[in-house]
Amino acid sequence: MPRITESHRAERRAEILAAAARLFAGNGFHATSMAGIITESGLSAGAVYSYFRSKEELIGAVADLVMSTADEVFAGLLAGDAVPSPADVASAMVEGITAQLIDDPEIGVDLTRLAVQVWAEALRNPEVLARVSGVVVRLRGHCAEAARRWQEAGNLPVDAVPDQVGAAMLSLVQGYILQRLLLPPTSAPEYVAGVRALLLPAS
Amino acid sequence: MPRITESHRAERRAEILAAAARLFAGNGFHATSMAGIITESGLSAGAVYSYFRSKEELIGAVADLVMSTADEVFAGLLAGDAVPSPADVASAMVEGITAQLIDDPEIGVDLTRLAVQVWAEALRNPEVLARVSGVVVRLRGHCAEAARRWQEAGNLPVDAVPDQVGAAMLSLVQGYILQRLLLPPTSAPEYVAGVRALLLPAS
Repeated sequence: MPRITESHRAERRAEILAAAARLFAGNGFHATSMAGIITESGLSAGAVYSYFRSKEELIGAVADLVMSTADEVFAGLLAGDAVPSPADVASAMVEGITAQLIDDPEIGVDLTRLAVQVWAEALRNPEVLARVSGVVVRLRGHCAEAARRWQEAGNLPVDAVPDQVGAAMLSLVQGYILQRLLLPPTSAPEYVAGVRALLLPAS
Repeated sequence: MPRITESHRAERRAEILAAAARLFAGNGFHATSMAGIITESGLSAGAVYSYFRSKEELIGAVADLVMSTADEVFAGLLAGDAVPSPADVASAMVEGITAQLIDDPEIGVDLTRLAVQVWAEALRNPEVLARVSGVVVRLRGHCAEAARRWQEAGNLPVDAVPDQVGAAMLSLVQGYILQRLLLPPTSAPEYVAGVRALLLPAS
């Protein structure tokens, strides 16, 4: 039997994920089966099951991908003692999502379409909800840390609660995902311009 | 044959809508059938079909309900020459949604759960997408009108585009719906406090 290297395993795993993401994004989570994913991936059932035992595990892997994109964006934003403005945070998130979840050529599918399917599924499936809540908590935590620094620098009212401000910041990203999908003319640069105008008034 | 009055018809229609909303919200749009809706409503198939011929028509009616809630909120906000701040707009929308879509005792179901199902369905079903796009366009239009007045009053940069600012305002409402469902501790007053702090900096 040939020895399967680590990089070969990682590649296989990415192929299966991409196949699953294409089907979830096109047909929804519910109408997609493990059998369909196996066919779409072009691999054997045994190979696919050695990486992912269920649709829920695949959703979890996609959630991890979204999370690592966000972690990377915030690692850049919050490096050292940086104090990004809320508009900078929203803008970097929108750009990160566009580059890594919408336009990534390796995945070949718009993962934000999948995100919306996952939100809907979370309302019916406690396992998916737990996973999605974890992602939202972590994203809000990143936004809250940015809000805390922004407040410390004197840019937010002293009685503002960073967690609450972080929730509002995160909404600016979630709304971009939704409006872009539901109303196609919403482009990232135009959206970011609107956010900047809203958050940086003339006064 | 007894004469069926207009108010009787409206009541029946509301009953069917509520039954459909309960099933859509609990099981999703896809797993819900007209037969299931007929059973849930307790009415005859003929009665139900005389009001709604398909699941898509029911989704349309729920979209109308969401729209009329928003229209009412904005009619109040924009009455006369009122110039509500973006924070006032987001706050009124969050409160209107909470009172009329989440806690309405006549519907007896949280319609925001249904909204998330409808967003997901819109990505697979062009008829639903057309309907949902119409709602988003209208909501964004209301927000843009508020932004236009806010700009005219000197509170936004002169080169800001009201439509773009309106998109960001609408996100603050969509994010509330999502975060409240996916992360239950998100309460309306706390969320609104975060929005107000974000939009009205200390400076």
